[in-house]
Amino acid sequence: MGEGRKNEAISIILCETSHPGNIGAAARAMKTMGLEKLILVAPRCFPHSVATERASGAEDLLVNASVVATLEEAIGDYTWVLGTSARHRAFPWPLLTPEKAAKMVSSLLASSTIQKIAFVFGSEQSGLSNEQLQLCNYHVYIPSSPQFSSLNLGAAVQVVAYEIYKHLSVLELPPVAEKSQPSKKATISEVLALVKEWEKTAVHFAFMDPKQPKKLLTRLQRMLNRAQLEREEVNILRGFLRSLKRTEDA
Amino acid sequence: MGEGRKNEAISIILCETSHPGNIGAAARAMKTMGLEKLILVAPRCFPHSVATERASGAEDLLVNASVVATLEEAIGDYTWVLGTSARHRAFPWPLLTPEKAAKMVSSLLASSTIQKIAFVFGSEQSGLSNEQLQLCNYHVYIPSSPQFSSLNLGAAVQVVAYEIYKHLSVLELPPVAEKSQPSKKATISEVLALVKEWEKTAVHFAFMDPKQPKKLLTRLQRMLNRAQLEREEVNILRGFLRSLKRTEDA
Repeated sequence: MGEGRKNEAISIILCETSHPGNIGAAARAMKTMGLEKLILVAPRCFPHSVATERASGAEDLLVNASVVATLEEAIGDYTWVLGTSARHRAFPWPLLTPEKAAKMVSSLLASSTIQKIAFVFGSEQSGLSNEQLQLCNYHVYIPSSPQFSSLNLGAAVQVVAYEIYKHLSVLELPPVAEKSQPSKKATISEVLALVKEWEKTAVHFAFMDPKQPKKLLTRLQRMLNRAQLEREEVNILRGFLRSLKRTEDA
Repeated sequence: MGEGRKNEAISIILCETSHPGNIGAAARAMKTMGLEKLILVAPRCFPHSVATERASGAEDLLVNASVVATLEEAIGDYTWVLGTSARHRAFPWPLLTPEKAAKMVSSLLASSTIQKIAFVFGSEQSGLSNEQLQLCNYHVYIPSSPQFSSLNLGAAVQVVAYEIYKHLSVLELPPVAEKSQPSKKATISEVLALVKEWEKTAVHFAFMDPKQPKKLLTRLQRMLNRAQLEREEVNILRGFLRSLKRTEDA
């Protein structure tokens, strides 16, 4: 398979990591499984000598890592975002094991369209916030002992990267030909723009419950994530929303 | 299967570990996957505060760990010994991936006879010696990038323990939290009613292309089907559409 193409397609995003050692451990875990692209969202200490030390042969991933301020910024042009999550969340979201996630990613990459896929990991203390999780298309849950399910961050990255490697190393990727289409799937930022437009319209038409403005938007976001919208569908929906106001203004 | 029986049956043995941090990381990795029995063969520094710190919730495994002088001593009464090994060895030995090893262990434990199984990990610098490897029934090789296959010791233990857990626990996805339980899927006719409502609204606001009225509706229907809407979501969307006209009428 095209090793290079896989490396470009799959990124690991670490959010608000507290311990620089875990950033280094994650980089090393990634590199052992052929992944290269690391994005750090608001790390507490980076760069840091402890991160470099723990990378132990994967320092190049740290040197090439992107550092951004928010998860939203990190995933703007990604088509598939998978957030690792602790077991119980108040809101239901499509839930995958690392194995199923790796299988899904594998079949996505087997298609001829270009995909950008990110696996997102939260902070050591509290994992991903609900807001961050709602930006994800899927949640990934690592099976673990109900008595003690607290995987170290680097170890969690290792397990996910290992499953990816297991499933992708046997995958024959079609060569990227010129005819290869960019994915028709909408990016995260295109979907977010649609949600914003919807929110404005809902406010405009006094549809939102002002006491619970978030509830509607959360449901909407969840629904749109599940729908796995294509770019053209986002455009149709945005066009529809805009037409409402135009007609009223006329 | 009985969790207790599994815990007793499978041990992790670390040989000549240099860094106490890796002993702690291995203990934590084991505990997350329901393993408890740790044996240390001639560790360089143990006990050690760094090991305790990195165990981070799995200190009990360190307290209960056995420390012995040689691998031979450690595995005396074991029936199956699996040594993790780098890819290329001068001598041929039955070689398993962690997945195949976990499957084998799983079927061994399913039998009615008592089994004692150990997974053995070598030192950080040089892995298991040839003499140590020859004491093993099987060698286990973790699939990894040919360019950089150097997994951290704790990470290697995590991957092996994860595969054991996957195969030995009856893997069930966690139940969705109770309060979000009744996520009732919308029926086909509820979705169709939504599409009808949407069509009326689109006509009302002159959004539809009158030359191709069907095109928009087809896309909309396809999208809504893919979204697998819940009844409540249909209601929200219908409410939204109705609010548009109400506001205009007012």
